Order: sequence, then structure tokens, then C-alpha cells
Amino acid sequence: LDGVILLPQKPNGEYGYSLCTANDEDVANFVRDEVVAPVAFASSFARNMDRLFADGEPPAIVYVTNPSDRHGNLMNEIIRASVEALIRGWRHEDETLANAGDLTWAVQPNQMVRYDTEDAEALTFAADWAATLTNRVRKMDSINLWLPRSIKRSTGKSAMPSSISRVLPGLHKGRTAVITGGSLGIGLQLGRFLAIAGARVLLSARSEEKLAEARADIVEELRNIGYPRPEGRVKILGGIDVGDPDALDRLHDHAVAELGHVDFLINNAGISGAEEMVVDMTRAAWDRTMEANLISNYSLIRKFSPAMKAGGKGSILNVSSYFGGEKYVAVAYPNRADYAVSKAGQRVLAEILSRHLGPEIQINALAPGPVDGARLRGSAEAPGLFDRRGLLVLENKRLNEIHKAILAGMSDDFGVADVLTLATNRLDAVDVDALPKPIARLILKVRDSGGLGNSSQYLMHTGIASKLMTRLVRAGLLSDEQRDQFLDAFVDAPAPFFDFAETSKQAEQIETGILNRLHLHKMPTDEQVGLSTVFHLADDIVSGETFHPSGGLKFDRSVTEGELLLPPNESEVAKLKGKRVVLIGNSMKSELTNIANGFLAQHVEKLWVLTKTEDAANSLKHAVSNPNGANIECRAIGDDIESNLDAILRDDGGYDVVVSSPFERLPLNALAASANESWDRVLSDGEFRKLVHDQLTHHFRVARTSALVPNCQIVLITPDTSLASTREEFALALFVKNSLHAFTVTLGVEGERLPTVPAINQVQLTRRAHTEEPSNDQELAEEMTRLVHAVMQCSVPAPTPSESRYLSKIFRGNAVTV
Amino acid sequence: LDGVILLPQKPNGEYGYSLCTANDEDVANFVRDEVVAPVAFASSFARNMDRLFADGEPPAIVYVTNPSDRHGNLMNEIIRASVEALIRGWRHEDETLANAGDLTWAVQPNQMVRYDTEDAEALTFAADWAATLTNRVRKMDSINLWLPRSIKRSTGKSAMPSSISRVLPGLHKGRTAVITGGSLGIGLQLGRFLAIAGARVLLSARSEEKLAEARADIVEELRNIGYPRPEGRVKILGGIDVGDPDALDRLHDHAVAELGHVDFLINNAGISGAEEMVVDMTRAAWDRTMEANLISNYSLIRKFSPAMKAGGKGSILNVSSYFGGEKYVAVAYPNRADYAVSKAGQRVLAEILSRHLGPEIQINALAPGPVDGARLRGSAEAPGLFDRRGLLVLENKRLNEIHKAILAGMSDDFGVADVLTLATNRLDAVDVDALPKPIARLILKVRDSGGLGNSSQYLMHTGIASKLMTRLVRAGLLSDEQRDQFLDAFVDAPAPFFDFAETSKQAEQIETGILNRLHLHKMPTDEQVGLSTVFHLADDIVSGETFHPSGGLKFDRSVTEGELLLPPNESEVAKLKGKRVVLIGNSMKSELTNIANGFLAQHVEKLWVLTKTEDAANSLKHAVSNPNGANIECRAIGDDIESNLDAILRDDGGYDVVVSSPFERLPLNALAASANESWDRVLSDGEFRKLVHDQLTHHFRVARTSALVPNCQIVLITPDTSLASTREEFALALFVKNSLHAFTVTLGVEGERLPTVPAINQVQLTRRAHTEEPSNDQELAEEMTRLVHAVMQCSVPAPTPSESRYLSKIFRGNAVTV
Repeated sequence: LDGVILLPQKPNGEYGYSLCTANDEDVANFVRDEVVAPVAFASSFARNMDRLFADGEPPAIVYVTNPSDRHGNLMNEIIRASVEALIRGWRHEDETLANAGDLTWAVQPNQMVRYDTEDAEALTFAADWAATLTNRVRKMDSINLWLPRSIKRSTGKSAMPSSISRVLPGLHKGRTAVITGGSLGIGLQLGRFLAIAGARVLLSARSEEKLAEARADIVEELRNIGYPRPEGRVKILGGIDVGDPDALDRLHDHAVAELGHVDFLINNAGISGAEEMVVDMTRAAWDRTMEANLISNYSLIRKFSPAMKAGGKGSILNVSSYFGGEKYVAVAYPNRADYAVSKAGQRVLAEILSRHLGPEIQINALAPGPVDGARLRGSAEAPGLFDRRGLLVLENKRLNEIHKAILAGMSDDFGVADVLTLATNRLDAVDVDALPKPIARLILKVRDSGGLGNSSQYLMHTGIASKLMTRLVRAGLLSDEQRDQFLDAFVDAPAPFFDFAETSKQAEQIETGILNRLHLHKMPTDEQVGLSTVFHLADDIVSGETFHPSGGLKFDRSVTEGELLLPPNESEVAKLKGKRVVLIGNSMKSELTNIANGFLAQHVEKLWVLTKTEDAANSLKHAVSNPNGANIECRAIGDDIESNLDAILRDDGGYDVVVSSPFERLPLNALAASANESWDRVLSDGEFRKLVHDQLTHHFRVARTSALVPNCQIVLITPDTSLASTREEFALALFVKNSLHAFTVTLGVEGERLPTVPAINQVQLTRRAHTEEPSNDQELAEEMTRLVHAVMQCSVPAPTPSESRYLSKIFRGNAVTV
Repeated sequence: LDGVILLPQKPNGEYGYSLCTANDEDVANFVRDEVVAPVAFASSFARNMDRLFADGEPPAIVYVTNPSDRHGNLMNEIIRASVEALIRGWRHEDETLANAGDLTWAVQPNQMVRYDTEDAEALTFAADWAATLTNRVRKMDSINLWLPRSIKRSTGKSAMPSSISRVLPGLHKGRTAVITGGSLGIGLQLGRFLAIAGARVLLSARSEEKLAEARADIVEELRNIGYPRPEGRVKILGGIDVGDPDALDRLHDHAVAELGHVDFLINNAGISGAEEMVVDMTRAAWDRTMEANLISNYSLIRKFSPAMKAGGKGSILNVSSYFGGEKYVAVAYPNRADYAVSKAGQRVLAEILSRHLGPEIQINALAPGPVDGARLRGSAEAPGLFDRRGLLVLENKRLNEIHKAILAGMSDDFGVADVLTLATNRLDAVDVDALPKPIARLILKVRDSGGLGNSSQYLMHTGIASKLMTRLVRAGLLSDEQRDQFLDAFVDAPAPFFDFAETSKQAEQIETGILNRLHLHKMPTDEQVGLSTVFHLADDIVSGETFHPSGGLKFDRSVTEGELLLPPNESEVAKLKGKRVVLIGNSMKSELTNIANGFLAQHVEKLWVLTKTEDAANSLKHAVSNPNGANIECRAIGDDIESNLDAILRDDGGYDVVVSSPFERLPLNALAASANESWDRVLSDGEFRKLVHDQLTHHFRVARTSALVPNCQIVLITPDTSLASTREEFALALFVKNSLHAFTVTLGVEGERLPTVPAINQVQLTRRAHTEEPSNDQELAEEMTRLVHAVMQCSVPAPTPSESRYLSKIFRGNAVTV
């Protein structure tokens, strides 16, 4: 027992407000309940003290009187006086006994007097103070502890602080923080809790207005906690779109001007991305996501690090996502490949830069799972994540069904003209009997589906139709003119296509699915994530790690380091006979030569080699050996990947396998400089943008086209590092392979759902650690052999889900290290 | 500017102690410096206030006077009075101006009066209070703030709290914690910081004495912070060896009796383990490590969880290690296989139990890297980790060199008699010319090595000799009698064998190597890890995760989910022709049959099938088909694994491949029960011990013997789950495969260093997620085929480090999932 709090038995007015006007019974009751009872309690308590607290200190005892009765407090004053007399007597008695050695302790009761203030916070304040007294050995000599007339005047607080705002202040006192995306969600909560913890913060975001609201709330909270001049502790900078490089310069300059030095850089801002399957995603949308989520991240790290290094300290937090994966592990995020890659990239940046930015700077990643907040639930202006996903799932399902039926129809000798008839769209206007069976079956199924909106009367809406046409054109099945003709003739379905109830049901299913995968069966809130992260930020000995504040989400994950041991079975590899293979690359000439020779030895029918430069095309043409007389074509295509693949699809009969290797080598820049060195040689944001373009976007461009080719095997190759590679180059190679794997594994899962069932896998030439790499010519030759075997293995036709659901998963989304 | 603190210009006595006795010059100086100067400052400051603080509040201004001069404070009293007059005037002036609307603020200076106390803490307290006043808007009406006569009496604090003890209190207020291994290191720091944060803690350990010391320190610290009755906040229980199941019962009972409910269970106690290579590790040492580090962990979770579930909350932290790996990743820890497995097991327990213990209970793991503290640095009684490892590295290097020379000698027709001559040990007494070349070369090399101790005069010391003999006997090369004969004749080297300087140098190299691998280039201390972990424990939304408080250690890691795509190359698998294969197992009969048939189809020369029961031996005998007439022998061996493998080595000419599958199935128990259900069906500690024995120790026993067989391929198989498996059974399968991988990868690395260069790999039948498992008969058949292919692939002779360093690593320590 640490404390006892005694309250009056009755509220004000129960016995009247004055002894003069009260009747005899009230007087008797008042004296019994409020004057005698406390004495009786004290007596009984004191008698039992020895037995109850044999070897400790006695509990703190606090009497609390009633609040102001607004009638002069006459009766309250009697209670106060009697309790005071009681306390005085008790203290005196204990002291006497203790002096005589009859008692090993002395009780020191106090009295909290509440009735001479009508301050709105008086009750909370008194309760809080009473509780505090029971928890401290602070022995107040005063018997009566009067509440101050004005709590605000005495304490500077207009409201009692919450328990967390008592614990936090001081945790980050004197620190400064820059937070992007600070106007809502996790960013706002991080800013708020860092400020509560004593840091001065600069919140940036696009909307000046939302920032101003956020700031006002935080300032008010700081004022209530008792921070002096709270306005000066929270700065804002609006108009900052992290997708705009100039804005990042402004943010950096503003931060330096406003905060002086920066202790915490919180890279929180980001966009949701395209929210499309890879095959439907535009290049522009992909680039936007890379710029806003990944390149901006590096850019800010690059801007703030020199001063942090020079100042000897700093802490950077990249707000990634559960879907950014973990060390050696990628997580598939269907319909969000661009987002997943950008988030994986943010996480890997923390892993590879930690060594270079350390020991002065810590850099870590935050990987929240689904968080119950603004982003998830949406707002008046924008639907939440679940609603968007719910709709997308329904739309993509319809799109894939139509796409599949058309592909199936094609093999039943279905012509372009038949596709064009579908522009009628309204199902009762379509002549089902005139259509090939797969399409007719689909239309009957859709008619019977009983969709609540117009989705059972119409085949698609304009959005679906337009995506479908784009797929068919890009797959070489329709011409641009035919697409335009279709869309011109297209009869749009009236809104809503999918009824709101239908979409909501889908959204609910998604939410339930996610909750079932969370160990604690609940999603944390923005506030909880912000709070736990602010505690994480107090850890000053960790770098290169990923925090999981809402951990325990069980999604299928894929490891980044699949291993190939023995060469693949020859009879399996022989299935490459007669296949049509596209080989893309420029910088890795000897690897391309060996891979080409590997395919040619397997009697492939046709081999296209697409290089960036004429030189590379010529040198490859001469280097390959073609013992079985395959048809080989080497083309220099500059940057024109898409149209060259389109041409092969449209004019040259298509392909079965595409092997994509980068056109460019890794940059050779430093990743940091020491405190007193120049940062000129350190990878700039422009060079990082180029790296993303050359090593990640490059493969996206190849894969999004090739995934529309039926049963295409897609193999992505990540750059090699040489015997002489620096640890910086090696780090960048790890960045590429680990970030790219988020793409590979996502398209791997999407591939199971696409009508073309493509299979994508990744072959990587960089092992986990530099020491595991080949270290002499013999070992380099062994690595080359393993590379060719790995590419062959990933080029053999993969089982489709209809053949074996079990095997079809296994053959997609792997990252094989050689 | 938040605050201004003004101190007197001169210390006490500078102008004398009384105006009456001071000379004229002293008086003039005193008045100028201590009376006029403050007024001049105030005047100048007030004039510039508008310019300096245009839009904020004015800073807090605090005057501090000198401490007691022990001469009556006559001069101090003049300073006090003049500053008081100044403050009074300043306040009045501001108020008047503010009332007139000429000023938007009022300055409220205070004066800290220090000179009437001689309390030792007075200076610290005054400084702290002055600083606090500048940081708060708490406007004290009193002009003079006198320090209390007795700070302890007024505040309950005998010393000023450190900054951390201001931030922490309240963080875990009202919580209770049980901590094993709480007498030193991380455990002690966790207990300490949890107590500072407001939790009541129970520390347990073996030594009552060390616990009592630890408790006394924490209690003193709590008292200084101001906790009431701090003795009651820290309980201890000595005599708790976590390797003793009875002790765990006592701990549980004691915790319930002392704390009532338990909020935090911190499974921190553990032992370092055998610190030997797997081949030298005894079964007893392995069992001890499993019991103390892993089984005890589960046992305590099992004891404390029911009440936590029933109470609706609880948090469990398993103190694992960086070397326990991460999700899907294992870390090799040579010479520490037992430790690595136990730590991986602790981590995986958190991963698999989180779902079952949630949502009420959070369970997480802590994975510290090397921590600069008691464990690492050692103590008077025991050398630290680096010193132990330094010595072990030198000893093992010598042991492996001799072992290697003997094996090489054997192939030069070197007999047992030659081995026995080595018992002479003293190198100048050995007749080098009479020995086979490899041994002669080693002896000459050792002689020239210039070791500082006796390590260049003697071949080995008794410890090395005894390990060597054990290896040779267990490998079937010597008999027990020959070993005894050798050891009887053995001439021990005088101490020290390795000079202290030599060992220390090795230890330093190890330390430097580790520091180079840390991103922040420094090891955290026990205290830092404890502190950051206490912050982590405030995160109430995370479960199933691993915290890395000292993250960023770059060790080679191995992923748990290697993937096999195509079947292996037939010409490679044909290398199994003529090999001698041992197949161990009992419960997985159809898998064993298929694997046996796979080997028999490859023309192996001899196949032993070792089962536990006669039934299994008989049924396998009848199930296999032997088209090429191999020599097949099926034996029921009960639990007698070692002696049966020994017999094959000694009497039957040895083996090239061993495939180890478990004798027993996974248990089918629940892993938790709901709050109001019985826990009778939940896996007991005894059942967990059996699981560890059947699924982990089993493979250790096979591998430690087989790793002594030259060029042996060792394949470990983890249990399958069936179509009908519960998620509990699936979770246990994940536990087995992920914990076992720590063993496989460690022996994988050790295998590169052993003279026998064994290659160990693991084949696992459980995929990452239940949904990826085969779900019909066709898929089950496909899985079986993949299993056989994976086992074949891992049975083909692996390249040795001398053939290819690059390939030899790749072929060892993998975990292939089928």
C-alpha cells in the first residue's frame, strides 16, 4: 500500500450550507460522517499499522475536501478545521512515539484543500496532486495544501497534461527535427510527439493550410504541457511536394535557417503510387512514384548528411512500409509494384548507407504495417486505402476475365473484328451466338452474376475498356487505329458500374483479411505508431535496421538470396528448343555473350539481342557462336525499349523468353565523405536518379511489356561487381538487387492472376557479402557458368496455376544468387 | 533565448565578509560589481527587449546568489536585498507599462537564494532549479526562492536525479516485471531501468550475493529519484539456475506471491554454451545449452502465459542474440553451434507464439550484437568472451592442423603406430624423418612458428591431445584402447602453451574485426542496451518481432528459404554412383522410401537404413525397389544413433552420404488456450523438451559424428506437415526448420575449416506459409519429387575450399525448401 486518499462522505449541500440554518438531524449526521468518521478511520488505521506495514514505510495519507460550494464554504471550513486538527494530532502523536523509540516511522498526513478555487481544472489538478503525493516521499510540512487561485498563473498550464506528456518531455530535449509529410498521419504524430519530447520541429507538406492547423494543435498541446514560447518550437513550411527537386532545396535551406542544425531527418512524405497491376501501369506513374518516394529520400539524406557528419551526430529515419520488406526478404504487394519498390529502396538505403554515414549518423527505416489513420480511412476529399483496393480488385478481376476470354478466343480463330463488336458493351445488345465460346461463356456468366450496380448489364466501363485496349495494343494484338475505333464506338455503362455496397463489401473483406494476419488482431493508430517511433528514436546505438512498430503481420515473403547448387536438368533445359528469345543489355557484354551461347546451344529458334549502342550490338554479333544455325538478330535500340519489343510482337511473331540486363554500369561514386572532406565526389541526387532509372526502371519497362506476352518467361539480371569493386559499388549492387526484388516478387504474384501467366525471376551476380564473391579467374569462370545455368533455369517454361497451384508459385518471383 | 541566469561576479570573501571590516576599495568594488552591475544589466536588457523578442515571450531571468560564506552571509545579504529591490522595481515597472498598453509582456525575474544551506547537494539542486525555471513558464510570485534547509527532507531525494531518471519515471509505472539473469549485464540493466521507469521488479539469478548487491544499488538509485519505499520495488530470488526445471517452478511461485500479477517476463538468463566446434562438442554440453537457454525459455513462457491471457495483458521478451538470426535468416557462429541454435530457437519462439499468445500477450525477441559489458570483458573469476575465443581459435587451429596432417598421412600409408609416436609431443624428441611427409611438414612448421609460449616446442597440450584422440576414435580410425594408450604415454607441454600475449593479440584481432563490422564502429554498453530496450518495451503494438538494439552488424547470413526450381543435372547426380549412403529416420516412411529409391536408381554401392523401430525397418525393407542390386541393410537401432554410425565407420568401411530425418512426428498440442479455457492441452515444457530432442538434438547427434568422416555429405530433413495440419503443427514445423538452420549454417562454415571438409545442407518440407503448401494429391506427389531431387542435389560431393573457395561456400549450409 503506497497511499490512502480520503474523500468527504457527502457532496456539498447534503447537510445544507451552514450549521446555523441546518436542522438538528443534518447537524448530527454532518458531525458523524465528516468530523467523527475521519478520526475513527485514523484511529483504526493507526492501530493496525504495525501489522500491515511491518517492514516498510507507512503509506502516504491525503485527505481531500469538497470543492467550492459557492455559498461561502462554511461547512467545508469546519471539515477542513477538524481534519487539520486530526492531522496535527496524529503527526504529533507519531513524533512523540517515534522519539520514544516506540515507533519506527512517523505518518505525515496532508490535506488537499480544494474549495477556494472555481478554476475549471481544479478537480483534475487536485486529483493529480493527491495522486502525486501518494507516490512520492515528498513530505510537505504544510498540513493544508491549498490549490492556487489560478492554476494557469501558478503552473503555466491551462490543462492537466496527459500521462504521456509527463513521460516524454525531456526525451529529445534540445534536439531539432525536420519531418516531411508532416501535415497528417504518421508524419504529424511524429512531429507532435517529438515536439512534446522537447525537440524543435519543422513540419513540411504540400498544404500550407493543413500544416497551419496541425501546428496550432501542437502548439496548444505544448502550451498546456508548460513549454515556454511553444510557437517557437513548431515551424512549418508549406508548398513542399517531395516529387519536386526544387522544393527539397527550399526545405533544406529553410531548415538550416530556422533550426540551425538538424538532429533528426524524418523522410516521411510519400505517395500511394499508381495502384495498378504492372501491365497497366504507365511509365509516367512509375517515374512519379520513384521520384516522390525514393529519389527525394536519397536527395534529402544527401543534403542533410554533410552537416550532420561535420557536427558529429544526426539521425535519419526513412519511413518505409511493411511492404518494403526486410533484410534479405521481399514482400509481394500486388497492384502496388511501384510503391513496393520505392519502399524497399528506402529500407535498403538505410541498410547500405548506415556504414558510410556512421559512426556520426544513425540511419534506420520504419516499416509500419497497415495503420488505422487518415491514409487508410480516407477523408472527405479522397477514399481510403481499403475502398480504393476494394474497387481495384473488382475492376481488375473483370479486366482480367475479359482479357483472358479474348486470348482464349484468339486461339479459337477469333479475329480483331470480334473484339471490336464488344464495344457495344450493353450485354443484351451483344449477339452471344456470334462470339467464340470463351467470350460467350464470360458474357453469360457476367449476366448471371447479379452485380448490384450496372456490372451485370454491361461488360465494362470506360476505364476498364481503355486499359483492355492498351493491353491488347501493347501485346501486338490490335493496332492503335483499332483501339481508337473501339473506344470511339464504345458505349459506356451508366454509373455506378460496381455498386457502392459491392465495393464496400470487398473493402471489408480486405480489412478482415489483414486483421486476421496481425498477431495482435488490431491495427495500430497513427498516434500509436508515432509514439512508439519517438521512443525508438531515443535508441542511440542502432543503425541500418528496420523498426516494425506495428509488427507481426504474416504475409508471404520471398527471400532475396535463393541459391542454385547443381546445374539444371538437361532434359528440362532442352525444353528451350524452338523458343524465341530476346536478350537485352549493353554493359555486361561477356555475360550476354555467354548467355546467348547458352541459348543457342539449346537449339532456340530465334535470338534477338537488343543493345543500347551499335558498338555493343556489333561486338556481340561477332562474339556469339551459333552451332545450330539459329536466326540471330542484333539491334542497337538506344533508349527505345518499348517500341522495339512492340515491333517484335507485332511484326516478328513474338517471343517466349526475355532476359533483361542493364544498359549501364553502376556508378563509382563515394556514398559519404568524412567531416572535413569535400562531398563533391559523393553520389548526387541526379546520379541517384540515374541509378534508379538504369537499374530499376529499365527492368520495369521490359517486364511490363513482356508480361502481356502469353506464357513469357522474364529474367532480370542485376549488375555484377568486379574483383576490384569498392565497397561503395558493392553497396549499390546490393541496393539494386534488394530493391528490384520487390518488383520481381510482386509481378511474380500478379503473373499468377494475369491471363498471360508470365513468370518473372531475377538472377543476381552480387552475393550477400564481398568475401563470398569470386576472387580469382577460376572462380569468375565458375560464376559465369552458374549465371548461364541460372538464366537457363529461369527461362524454362514455368508451370501455370491451372497445371499446379503449388509449383506455379514456386517458379515465380525468385531471386537466384550466383 | 529562453532564459538568462545571472551569477555574482566574485566568490565569497573576495571583498571580505563584512562591510564593517572591509577597506574602502573593497567596498567600492563590491558595490560596483555586485550591486550596480545587475541594475546596469537589467536596464540595458530591458531597453533592447523590444528588438530582441519582437514576437515572443521574454526570456526567464534568474539571479543566483553565492552559497553560504560560513561567516554570517552579511555581504550576501546585501546582494540579495539589492537584487530583490531591483526585481521588485523591474516587475512593477513592467506591470505599469503593460497596464498602460505600452508593453505586450511583463518580465517576471526571480532570485535563487542559496546561502542559508550547507547541504552537500545545494549547488546541484540550485543549478537544477535555476535551469528548470528558465525552461518553464511557471511564474513564481515569490521573488526570493530559498533553498530548503534539508533538500532530502523537502524532496525525498538525497542526490539530484540524472536526466534519464527524469524521463523514465512513469513510463512503466504500476507494471511488474520478472527478469532472469538479473544480477549482471543486460538483465541487471533491464531490471534497473524498468524499476526507474516505475515498475516493480523481481530479479532472479544463481548468486544470492550478487543479486543483493544489485538490489542495493537499484534501491539507492530509486530512493534518490524520489520513489517511496524503494525497498518494496525491487525483489530478488537467488538460487535460480534456469537449467534446473524445479528452479523455474520456484521462480514462478515466488513471482506470483511477491508481485501478484506479472506484466513483463524477461527471459534473459542464459549460458555461453560449450564453445567448441560441433565435432568436439559433447552431447551433455549440447543438452545443457538447450535446457538452460531454450527449454527454460519456453517453460517460463508456458508458466506465466495463462495468467497474462486471463488478465488480458502481458509482454514477454526473449533475450536472444544477433547470432540467433532474423526472420528467414540464420547467422553462422562457428564454435558456438549450440548457443546459436538456442538463440535462434528463442527468436523463433517469439515469431511462432505471437499469434497464439496474442492479442492479449505481446511476445518479442531482443537480439543484441556484441555488448561491451561484464559478459564480454570477463571478471576476476572468468575470462571475457574475446579472450576465450582468442584462445579457442589458436587451440582449434592447432588441433585442425594436426588432425589434417594425420588424415593426409593416412593416405600415404600411415598407420596407427605412427599416430601413437606423436604422444612424445616434445618436438625435438620426435623423429621427423620416420614420419610421413604431411606430419613431418607440420612439425617443422610448428617448430619455426616462433610461438611465444611452449607452442613451438610442443605439438599440443593435454586438452588438444584429448580432443584429437576423441575425433580419431569417433571417426573409426583408433580404438578406445589406442586412445587410452596414447593419452597414458602423452607428455604434456608445460604451461603456458600459448603465451598470454599471443592469446591477447588474437582476442584483439577478434575485437577489431567485430568493431569493423559495426555501422557505428562501437559496441554499445549493457546500460545502453538496457535503456533502449526499456523504451522498446513501451511499444504496445508490436509482437513477433526482433529488436536489434545494437543493430548494424554485418555478418554473413544465410537465408532459410533457398529454393530449388528444376531437378538437378543428371550427370551431376550420376556422381552418386558407387557411393555409400546412410539413411536415418522412422516417422517419415514414404519420404524415406522415395529417397532410398532415388539413391538406388543412381547405382549407389551400399545403402544403410537406420530406423528407430523394427516395424519401420521392416516396412522400409519391403517398400524400396533395388533395380541395380545395391547392398541394402535396414537396421532398427532404437535411440542408439552414435554407436551404429561408429560401427559403420569402424567395421563396414564408412560412408559418403548421410541423410538424417527425424524419428518422431511433431506434437499435435495447442500452443495457447483462451482466457477462460483449460491449458491442459497446451504444449508442456516436457513436451517442448521432447520436441527439441527429437527434431534438433537428433540432427546434432548425426552431424557431429558424420562431420568427422572425410568429405561426407550431410543432409538434414525437417518434418513435413500434412494437408490436415493445424496451424499449431505448422508453427512448430517452422520452429524446427528455422532453429535448425542456425545449426546447419554454423556447421556449414565449420566444415570449410575442418580437415574432413564435410558439407551439410538442410532440406525442409514446410514452406513459409500454409497457403503455399501442396493442397491435393497431385501437388503432394510433386512435393515428393522435389524432396528427392533436393536430397540428391545435396548429396552430390561438394567442392572443397582448395578446389574453389567460392563454390565451397555455396555448397554448404543451405536450407532448401521443397
